[in-house]
Amino acid sequence: MLESIRKDLLHAKHLHALAACLLGLGALAQTPPPVLSAAESDPVKLGWMQGTPPPPDKVIRSTDANAFQFPRMRWSVAHMRELMPTVEVSRGLGPPSPLPNRPDPGIDSVRFTPWGANEPMTWEASLWKNYTDGILILHRGEVVYERYFGALKADGQHAVMSITKSFTGTLAAILVAEGVLDEHKPATAYVPELQGSAFADATVRQVMDMTTALRFSEDYADPKAEIWTFSAAGSPMPKPVEYNGPDGYYDYLRTVQKQGPHGDAFGYKTVNADALGWIIARATGKSVPALLSERIWSKLGMEQSAYYQVDALGTAFAGGGLNAGLRDLARFGELMRNGGQWHGRQVIPAQAVTDIAGGGSKEAFAKAGYPQLKGWSYRDMWWHTGNAHGAYTARGVYGQTIYIDPAAEMVLVRLASNPVAANGANDPWSLPAYAAVAAYLMGK
Amino acid sequence: MLESIRKDLLHAKHLHALAACLLGLGALAQTPPPVLSAAESDPVKLGWMQGTPPPPDKVIRSTDANAFQFPRMRWSVAHMRELMPTVEVSRGLGPPSPLPNRPDPGIDSVRFTPWGANEPMTWEASLWKNYTDGILILHRGEVVYERYFGALKADGQHAVMSITKSFTGTLAAILVAEGVLDEHKPATAYVPELQGSAFADATVRQVMDMTTALRFSEDYADPKAEIWTFSAAGSPMPKPVEYNGPDGYYDYLRTVQKQGPHGDAFGYKTVNADALGWIIARATGKSVPALLSERIWSKLGMEQSAYYQVDALGTAFAGGGLNAGLRDLARFGELMRNGGQWHGRQVIPAQAVTDIAGGGSKEAFAKAGYPQLKGWSYRDMWWHTGNAHGAYTARGVYGQTIYIDPAAEMVLVRLASNPVAANGANDPWSLPAYAAVAAYLMGK
Repeated sequence: MLESIRKDLLHAKHLHALAACLLGLGALAQTPPPVLSAAESDPVKLGWMQGTPPPPDKVIRSTDANAFQFPRMRWSVAHMRELMPTVEVSRGLGPPSPLPNRPDPGIDSVRFTPWGANEPMTWEASLWKNYTDGILILHRGEVVYERYFGALKADGQHAVMSITKSFTGTLAAILVAEGVLDEHKPATAYVPELQGSAFADATVRQVMDMTTALRFSEDYADPKAEIWTFSAAGSPMPKPVEYNGPDGYYDYLRTVQKQGPHGDAFGYKTVNADALGWIIARATGKSVPALLSERIWSKLGMEQSAYYQVDALGTAFAGGGLNAGLRDLARFGELMRNGGQWHGRQVIPAQAVTDIAGGGSKEAFAKAGYPQLKGWSYRDMWWHTGNAHGAYTARGVYGQTIYIDPAAEMVLVRLASNPVAANGANDPWSLPAYAAVAAYLMGK
Repeated sequence: MLESIRKDLLHAKHLHALAACLLGLGALAQTPPPVLSAAESDPVKLGWMQGTPPPPDKVIRSTDANAFQFPRMRWSVAHMRELMPTVEVSRGLGPPSPLPNRPDPGIDSVRFTPWGANEPMTWEASLWKNYTDGILILHRGEVVYERYFGALKADGQHAVMSITKSFTGTLAAILVAEGVLDEHKPATAYVPELQGSAFADATVRQVMDMTTALRFSEDYADPKAEIWTFSAAGSPMPKPVEYNGPDGYYDYLRTVQKQGPHGDAFGYKTVNADALGWIIARATGKSVPALLSERIWSKLGMEQSAYYQVDALGTAFAGGGLNAGLRDLARFGELMRNGGQWHGRQVIPAQAVTDIAGGGSKEAFAKAGYPQLKGWSYRDMWWHTGNAHGAYTARGVYGQTIYIDPAAEMVLVRLASNPVAANGANDPWSLPAYAAVAAYLMGK
């Protein structure tokens, strides 16, 4: 069936590229090593989508296969709504909350040694190394560092990819804390349609922590990988006439099969976040975007509405479809750092934040085999570093992050478009840099 | 060529329905008389897009032909971004401006006699008669009336259809006032690509006032009507493999042919607004959405960003693609009523507002043959009533309006989704109602 899609369709290639993007896994394995540096691939300097209309070789079309390939992707991640249907996460109509500004010019020259390197590097250099589009650091709630690169501006939104999962997980943790969602119940208690799928005998908690055992390959090099079916199901574009596969994210989830026992090992599979999105939507009677607006986005004095990409039925992609402004993501990080309080008011239950900030099972995490992430864990769709500062983080595949360092009273948000779509390509120049800035701020 | 599109495409029907919507002309001539009243067709009560996922018979898909047909259309006009790619018109990041609230409970019982009727009707009844989705009245800058119906909420956005043209025209009038745009020059002075089209020997002013003579039929009953080519060119969906027509709005404009002499008669043709959008984009080096944000949307303390639908090249539909919040449209109306001043500051040139508020050539307008609109004119893509109050208005085909009554110090904004997509179906129950409310407010 997938072969027929590929052969038939004008937009078959588009589906593939879009899939990579939809799933927060990017251009991936097949992508040759990048030849352009961050400065060389600056999307404004390259002239993408400039002019009315842009010259043919500078157009990035929603219907083109290369819209989500480097270097075009560096423009696309800051303009997702121009390429596909989306649904708003409303900020409400109230005034934005202030983000006090106290720039610290010393941060640029903070030095750190990248993993596996012999020579130290400056913070400023790391931003270029990692194809940063936007970076903001809050210390004790004040903006000590804020910069924009390439196609992102302060009043723009950027794809956060798998950071989306952490929002889905946070909403679920809130509902568990409120007693609306019972983490011990099977997923089917909320979504009977998941009967017959791998999720049928998974508990809500196992879905929240991705300790389900799913047959779901996100290997883009494999044409039989499940990722392609998921992608085709979730595409908002018209389906090919002969298409008879799943229709939308939810319909796809019903087809996911089990591979091993649940509850044993962490297994990072995007579809868990979509299953969790379905569960929280059913538990509340609200869509994930409506829930995110109601519980978080309209409560913090966000400056901008956010948005999700959607499938052809209007379902938001809870596993990777959120787009938001840098400063608003920082507000959310600060909410988390303050135990769910915002300007002294308890906006989300402290118990939910405690659960996330406490991390998950290191044993289950170790079984997933991330050699660079010793002592880490995964809880409520957040990554916990297990370090001495108790730092935990939301992570997107192009290097996006919300990094919360409780000991350093620091929230760091980074939006990025690294052509190598893998955290392994970002972490060596990111995680030690974050730790160095945290130490610098603590020492002041 | 168009026949082949129709036969081939999965989404051919969608193209047609979308075209109707894109062009602000709706379901139109072929639509049977509506059988459902406003209350009966309430999109929330009908359950469109409720549930996760919605039941199959309640889904409105971006790829379905009926997405823009009544009664589904009543949901779609408040959710356009969920059905197609869009581009933001940023509000900026500042605080919203206050809209003082002074509700006047007397308005609901204001009575008027609809054109051609013998019996009077109340203001409140007129809202249902006209399938109102949102209505707001400012008197001396204070909100005296504000209501939402159906799928529209205060923090939502609604398609304004041809009100979009008035924004395009206002931007052009601003640029003329500033000397950036010379209204006496031919369109080709700004857009050389229009050489060979009907616009080649049209002046900028003729385009602004739609006194060009164009062969462009918007008759949906005619399969050979130019509207279909325009629609196919502007669709953001993948083009059929064998499609070899114009690519995007701008490419289409180059093919528009002349029919008669320019400058003689008003002829309401959507493509003028798109040509004007192209002209102002070239005159400024900015896209229409960027220009609208820079000059207006970021200057008035808007509560929400607005957005345009776009073609596959990312070009905003300057003839009908704007979507905005009710309260923000009222802010814009109030800016106009105050001669371009906002809270005492001159935001747009007074000359531009004077030009719009003064109306255009009644003689040219009369030649277009609108029997119900005696004494009206069209200037800078605004409709001028020519009445004793000097009222002028922006008009969308489902009954949307920004109605500015200088004598009554009143700004009235209405968003609506009348199944009969023609101003002739709205005016008899709208224009006398607006005049009655104006008289009521003046008499207080």
